[in-house]
Amino acid sequence: MKITAGCLRLAVVAVWVLSTFLSGRAQEPSASVLSTNRMNLMPVPASIKMQAGRLPVTGGFSVATRGYSDDRLRSGISRMIARLAGRTVFSLSYDLATNENTATLVVQCERAGEVVPSTSEDESYRLEVTDKQARLVAPTVIGALRGMETILQLLQGDRDGYYLPAVEIQDQPRFPWRGLLIDVGRHYEPMEVLKRNLDAMAAVKLNVLHWHLSEDQGFRVESRKFPRLHTMGSDGLFYTQEQVREIIAYARERGIRVMPEFDIPGHATSWLVGHPELGSAPGPYKIERDAGIFEPALDPTRETTYKFLDVFLGEMAALFPDAYIHIGGDENEGKQWDRNPQIQAFMKEKGIKDNHALQAYFNQRVLKILQKHGKKMIGWEEILHPDLPTDALIHSWRGPASLAEAAKKGYNGILSAGYYIDLIYPASQHYRVDPLPENTNLTAAEAKRVLGGEATMWGEWVSPETIDSRIWPRTAAIAERLWSPRTVTDVNDMYRRLAVISRQLEELGLTHEKNYDMLLRRLAGNNDPAPLRTLASLIEPVKEYKRYQVRPQTMLSPLTGLVDASRPDSETARHFSLAVDDFVADAPRFAVHRRGINDTFADWHRSGLALNPLIDRSPALQEARPLANNLMDIARIGQEAMAYLSAGEAPTTQWRDAQLAKLNEAAKPKAALEFVVIPGVRKLVIAAAELSQLNSTNAEEWKKRVTALAEAGTK
Amino acid sequence: MKITAGCLRLAVVAVWVLSTFLSGRAQEPSASVLSTNRMNLMPVPASIKMQAGRLPVTGGFSVATRGYSDDRLRSGISRMIARLAGRTVFSLSYDLATNENTATLVVQCERAGEVVPSTSEDESYRLEVTDKQARLVAPTVIGALRGMETILQLLQGDRDGYYLPAVEIQDQPRFPWRGLLIDVGRHYEPMEVLKRNLDAMAAVKLNVLHWHLSEDQGFRVESRKFPRLHTMGSDGLFYTQEQVREIIAYARERGIRVMPEFDIPGHATSWLVGHPELGSAPGPYKIERDAGIFEPALDPTRETTYKFLDVFLGEMAALFPDAYIHIGGDENEGKQWDRNPQIQAFMKEKGIKDNHALQAYFNQRVLKILQKHGKKMIGWEEILHPDLPTDALIHSWRGPASLAEAAKKGYNGILSAGYYIDLIYPASQHYRVDPLPENTNLTAAEAKRVLGGEATMWGEWVSPETIDSRIWPRTAAIAERLWSPRTVTDVNDMYRRLAVISRQLEELGLTHEKNYDMLLRRLAGNNDPAPLRTLASLIEPVKEYKRYQVRPQTMLSPLTGLVDASRPDSETARHFSLAVDDFVADAPRFAVHRRGINDTFADWHRSGLALNPLIDRSPALQEARPLANNLMDIARIGQEAMAYLSAGEAPTTQWRDAQLAKLNEAAKPKAALEFVVIPGVRKLVIAAAELSQLNSTNAEEWKKRVTALAEAGTK
Repeated sequence: MKITAGCLRLAVVAVWVLSTFLSGRAQEPSASVLSTNRMNLMPVPASIKMQAGRLPVTGGFSVATRGYSDDRLRSGISRMIARLAGRTVFSLSYDLATNENTATLVVQCERAGEVVPSTSEDESYRLEVTDKQARLVAPTVIGALRGMETILQLLQGDRDGYYLPAVEIQDQPRFPWRGLLIDVGRHYEPMEVLKRNLDAMAAVKLNVLHWHLSEDQGFRVESRKFPRLHTMGSDGLFYTQEQVREIIAYARERGIRVMPEFDIPGHATSWLVGHPELGSAPGPYKIERDAGIFEPALDPTRETTYKFLDVFLGEMAALFPDAYIHIGGDENEGKQWDRNPQIQAFMKEKGIKDNHALQAYFNQRVLKILQKHGKKMIGWEEILHPDLPTDALIHSWRGPASLAEAAKKGYNGILSAGYYIDLIYPASQHYRVDPLPENTNLTAAEAKRVLGGEATMWGEWVSPETIDSRIWPRTAAIAERLWSPRTVTDVNDMYRRLAVISRQLEELGLTHEKNYDMLLRRLAGNNDPAPLRTLASLIEPVKEYKRYQVRPQTMLSPLTGLVDASRPDSETARHFSLAVDDFVADAPRFAVHRRGINDTFADWHRSGLALNPLIDRSPALQEARPLANNLMDIARIGQEAMAYLSAGEAPTTQWRDAQLAKLNEAAKPKAALEFVVIPGVRKLVIAAAELSQLNSTNAEEWKKRVTALAEAGTK
Repeated sequence: MKITAGCLRLAVVAVWVLSTFLSGRAQEPSASVLSTNRMNLMPVPASIKMQAGRLPVTGGFSVATRGYSDDRLRSGISRMIARLAGRTVFSLSYDLATNENTATLVVQCERAGEVVPSTSEDESYRLEVTDKQARLVAPTVIGALRGMETILQLLQGDRDGYYLPAVEIQDQPRFPWRGLLIDVGRHYEPMEVLKRNLDAMAAVKLNVLHWHLSEDQGFRVESRKFPRLHTMGSDGLFYTQEQVREIIAYARERGIRVMPEFDIPGHATSWLVGHPELGSAPGPYKIERDAGIFEPALDPTRETTYKFLDVFLGEMAALFPDAYIHIGGDENEGKQWDRNPQIQAFMKEKGIKDNHALQAYFNQRVLKILQKHGKKMIGWEEILHPDLPTDALIHSWRGPASLAEAAKKGYNGILSAGYYIDLIYPASQHYRVDPLPENTNLTAAEAKRVLGGEATMWGEWVSPETIDSRIWPRTAAIAERLWSPRTVTDVNDMYRRLAVISRQLEELGLTHEKNYDMLLRRLAGNNDPAPLRTLASLIEPVKEYKRYQVRPQTMLSPLTGLVDASRPDSETARHFSLAVDDFVADAPRFAVHRRGINDTFADWHRSGLALNPLIDRSPALQEARPLANNLMDIARIGQEAMAYLSAGEAPTTQWRDAQLAKLNEAAKPKAALEFVVIPGVRKLVIAAAELSQLNSTNAEEWKKRVTALAEAGTK
């Protein structure tokens, strides 16, 4: 019979290894205390004081409001109750309690908060939980919404039922601008994708949806003034103005701003399909299908361009209530400008010395248009130019240093360098990036100009099926960086909490967890996907922009390959690597995790064996065959190294060199995927090879040497 | 480390057991030939002839059209290409080929098919695949759409790549009315739920969405004539008329009719919230929150009721282009009528002798209104009455016999009795129900009046998260019953194909597979859900209407409990039961599947052990604790029986009686869930207890005796 869910034996092993590992770590007292205090909260609040006691959460859970109340608050309370009910399976009442004294939770606000969410919104709240009652006090409804997300994260359960631990939390964000850019230009995303991501943003207290609405590959918003923009530039995949309003209202309900981006003068091919007259070359233009940087750019020398932009941006300024409109401004190389004699003549006439200056001229004109329509301008840092007035906001993709530089010049700015989640780096890496690092030399006034940051979900390689797994859970770590105090930097604790938050995000309809298995099932066709699951847990998509280089596709290609199913930030690899560290650190006994690591290698080997016949039956997996073979090599090398270490007997240097060479071969990307468990295996090989040194040096020295050698090999 | 995907060992066992089992079955030649011919097609076409050869499907796959073509056909082709691309990971071209001779597939239509899909649509097609080309010929675009779904199901892959097997298919439906009722009255379902289910319907060639739009618990469609209907009767959860048109257009694109139901005069509490003047008692009324049959009914004696219905149904007749409007008419017990003196006086005055006659009077009046607005009437079989004209259509929830009776009286009818998928019966049970059984005594003309049937997804206990798993994959088996020849009845082959189709349905965004694990993860909280997964694979929700009786909830309760995560038609239980059958049939050796069955019991026991601490940490699982304890009992009993059988030594009758008593105890529903593996374990207990008879009788006799005793015990 098919035992669909019978992974017990290995699951037991996994739990054993993991718990051993974690209890090992728990010996560091400070980390342990931190973990307790932070519970499963993400972002960590500004201040938490644990108290004695707990407030039971039962089927009688009730909420009363006090002070100011409105529809937004009541909807927020209803959503919180629905999520509490979903998690506890209690049939909770959705009616507000009339008696404040007996309510489980009292929510007390002073005022509505701003009609249009803005950077000056007060998002603070105070939450006090005793064994009698929980009390959430906030100056604004937005603060109360933030506090309710904290309550949902506080919920815990044990043999005696669900409860909120007694606690005093005082919380407010470190930065007022905490955003997520979603690029719907390259790949369109349906309304429900945006909505569930707005819910997830609210859950981790992000407050700006940066909606990247136009690209070379698509113009995604209905323009009633210039309908050729969306009808000819979008393949029919655009948002109607009614849908735009729906998204804005949905975001507003959650205290989230919606800032549109219309990327100009470059990244604008899709505009030119219906309006070639705006281009710097005659056209005709077609919607771009490839990834990369393309030549088409608006013609900044013609008055008709500005007339067009005046009408268009006026229309959009009325549609989007946010104070800012993002004009992009990035990656225009000006090749069309160079080749256009009219543009060259214009530059000469006006004394515009280069393309950067020409773009600055363009930006000035656009800035005036935006100002006329009551909007502030924001653009990528290319827009920085001595002529740029300081009320423009700089969006940095270069880094905190250039942001600091802009701040010194008087510009407000936000950071996205370091938060490019499309580059497939682990959460830990994003987590370490601080928009305002400790050692900055900014004055207090200058530092205040650093408003925050945005994770950027560039859309080259995401579909509605995969986008959630590219955004979540890693973006929750970025959200913490932007909300929590600078001192919250414990990576292990972040990962511990991230795993919990990731599951909670599923309550909101997010598919980052469930589509992983679904995509693997699809790739396995009618066959058992188990061995594929093992492989997928050990690999990640290649980083940065390598994917397109090694496995080119177009915007019309299916995003259903193994590279799409695989996810960034392999949890298996992280745990494996930590287990290997502990095992090697246990020299000369080599007992810690020995059984778990051996079982793991045996599992990898079995999976490698099972993959080849699976690939035979599923041609979509053909490209994964070298990975399957690598997997068997890696497992065998690991097993051999473990055997040497367990026996306390060093292998020959020939053996070492041969294995390291094979690992280097296995480390090379295939199918735009790469193994992320090789450093751990390499460490085992080095450790085995260095066994002979273990008697002559002290164990501490030996461990350092092994680690250094293993890391040197990684480069 | 956590080995997220390391279920290899047990997976290998499972594959071994399953393949042994299947190869055993393959000895029946006729079944085997059937399986080959039917490949993975569902519904099975009217006629299939396998040919030699195969047509490779490569990245160069192309489609040309010939004859009639329109937007609907081109959209259908694009959707087919997208799904082919998604499955094969080929970057296929979406442009139609210009050269018919070199295209991989030629689609040839004669005409558009009907503007509004109807029961007289020609859905037939002919598909010929050679090693050179595939050719799909259909009189209408709808036939071509049906044929393209067949092509997608034909796709196979092996070491040499993807291909379509050479084949000649001639296909048309057995019945013209093949529907799925979705009740959005009791629980609202968002647009994307409806859309993905329409896609799934098209995939299995269903052609009617029966949209049950009003209920005691909700009035779900915007009425511009009477806005109090939806504003006061829906909690804000209704479809705007624009959304209704969107669904109709989406369905039409897929050759699916959308027939609305407005259930009257009963099941109408939600109407009366905003319009108490329509009720048969003074009111006020509130939206009903419970499940069941309720008293409120429209007042059939007041002319104002018919004036209202004239305006309202006129509005809906204009909104819904389908020829039919369903008026429900079910389960009105007339209690309000009995108590209303005015209604009693009216009946006396008109000589209306009972409530059934009064409802017949009401139906006559409604029929005239519908006729005035150009619609045909359909209602549940309660509307049958001597006065009912034969152009009304009868929707049977009683069974094929009453449908036949209606047909004899001249009424067209459709069957839903036997297709109530909300009752949680296995697909095999629905599959056996035929709207027009072989032994019917209808004339050919009468038989033609049986138009088909509908699966009914009544909405008491479904949420957007769970509805797909209640509809799919079982509804695909019903779809086959309604499309394929009557002779297609092999249950094992149906299940074999159903497993394949179920995975393919995931391509359309269906969540029936992926939300299973998600709901279990949520219930497990921050803990490893593996043991819960094992338990969930062995249980099913209680059948029929027992759930509400044993575990009452309201329409506002969360549908996130273990009963909601659990699914009908446990595959694990089916495989287990077949394995036990084979094992017992292998008497006196008892070797077949022995290892697999023993491993299975060991896994159940480990899971039972692991469940108690998991439940301690996840209070939402408290109600599952008796099930966890039962699981350990069941596993232990199974292990003991296996030990006796393996040793060839009979236990005492005391042992047998004690185990059977424990199994009976374990078989009782808990938390509205019941084990579905108990019959197999009971059979092992009986077999062990009967071992002493094995020497004295012949093995065949013995097996029959064991089976009979085991089945007797089930009753």
